[in-house]
Amino acid sequence: MRLRGRKGIRESLEQQEDMVVLDPRQYKGKWASLFGNDQPIHVEFGMGKGQFISQMSYGNQEINFIGVDMYDELIRRASEKGRIAWAEEEVETPPNLKLALMNIENVEEVFEQGEIERIYLNFSDPWPKTKHGRRRLTHPRFLDMYKKILNDQGQIHFKTDSVSLFEFSLNSFADYGLQMTNISLDLHRDGVNEQFVMTEYESKFVGQGMNIHRCEVIIGEAALEEYRRDRLKKYGV
Amino acid sequence: MRLRGRKGIRESLEQQEDMVVLDPRQYKGKWASLFGNDQPIHVEFGMGKGQFISQMSYGNQEINFIGVDMYDELIRRASEKGRIAWAEEEVETPPNLKLALMNIENVEEVFEQGEIERIYLNFSDPWPKTKHGRRRLTHPRFLDMYKKILNDQGQIHFKTDSVSLFEFSLNSFADYGLQMTNISLDLHRDGVNEQFVMTEYESKFVGQGMNIHRCEVIIGEAALEEYRRDRLKKYGV
Repeated sequence: MRLRGRKGIRESLEQQEDMVVLDPRQYKGKWASLFGNDQPIHVEFGMGKGQFISQMSYGNQEINFIGVDMYDELIRRASEKGRIAWAEEEVETPPNLKLALMNIENVEEVFEQGEIERIYLNFSDPWPKTKHGRRRLTHPRFLDMYKKILNDQGQIHFKTDSVSLFEFSLNSFADYGLQMTNISLDLHRDGVNEQFVMTEYESKFVGQGMNIHRCEVIIGEAALEEYRRDRLKKYGV
Repeated sequence: MRLRGRKGIRESLEQQEDMVVLDPRQYKGKWASLFGNDQPIHVEFGMGKGQFISQMSYGNQEINFIGVDMYDELIRRASEKGRIAWAEEEVETPPNLKLALMNIENVEEVFEQGEIERIYLNFSDPWPKTKHGRRRLTHPRFLDMYKKILNDQGQIHFKTDSVSLFEFSLNSFADYGLQMTNISLDLHRDGVNEQFVMTEYESKFVGQGMNIHRCEVIIGEAALEEYRRDRLKKYGV
């Protein structure tokens, strides 16, 4: 497929103000008003071509979704996927889906403290070289940022096919003192796990027998309280 | 190799009172006096043929080691390995190694509260069927027992080739609220990791490219305090 020229892509994005947010900084603390309601907000950092966030938005209409990536072309492709996912409905614009062009380094300039309920990290770049460890999206310096923008129900849901990134991330979560749960080293062990929406990448590679690793991290105080109450009931500790 | 008859094995064990403990219950709270000193005690639950515990005892003479298994034949083989590991020294008996015949179900009848500093679980039976989950040595009901016998520096060091047992164990540790550290999904990724003594099983399968999974769990209060001080210094959390 021949890609459109860069200028054409930017023009296409500018014409999609109903879904595409080219300057997300202006909505810091105001995302609820952009969506026009107070539904919880789930963000995917590094949405790629947008299959996951599009299907999530259509399948979970009581949640608002923001797909984040830093390249115009990915935002454009995701905007197409978003509209296709909602094609059967009589709406011009998916009501609960926004696509934000931004670098995840700037997350605190874009989201207010406690503005987000869940962060999805799907197949993030593993940055395999040790010297690039700080760029991995589960590095403690990112956990610092995530912790600030998540609300009291806040969670991170993380999946990857990379053994080394998963190992790094488990250690990062553990060393940072975070509560992990639902850790899986082979998410689709018993055939495709329909409980979880797949990314493009995942659909492609699971068919080839690649293991998908996944875990959830509980950050928000209220979510943690609830989790600990369950533990006390279950194990007495 | 033809195994000796059962009676012959038991006789051989009875003749090795210097190393073999056939009724370990009698030493509850008295292991230090059996060793004749106050060195920390490390126990391997399920030592198999004893390669790991034997090499550990020779390589770490400032620690006392107890290898545990429930079959006479394994105790006998481990007793041979123990003596071989110490063969270069002018001692009749490895001074810091005991082999205890017992079922791990009875751990609290054999060890006093806080009597043990470290528990090694190496390649424990994965008990793959869900209905046998309670038999896995990382099941919370075992964690309950381990927590009691471990001292304030107490740790569990766990390794396995079984993806499903490792997954179960990570969740078990996390759900129980334990602090994990040094999680590895492929211990010998960069060639054999000389830092860790290998079991028979491990030596055999690592050569075939099998991934070894490993993690440490910090249980003792003093060890946890130290760990948390390091975290505060490193991450400010």
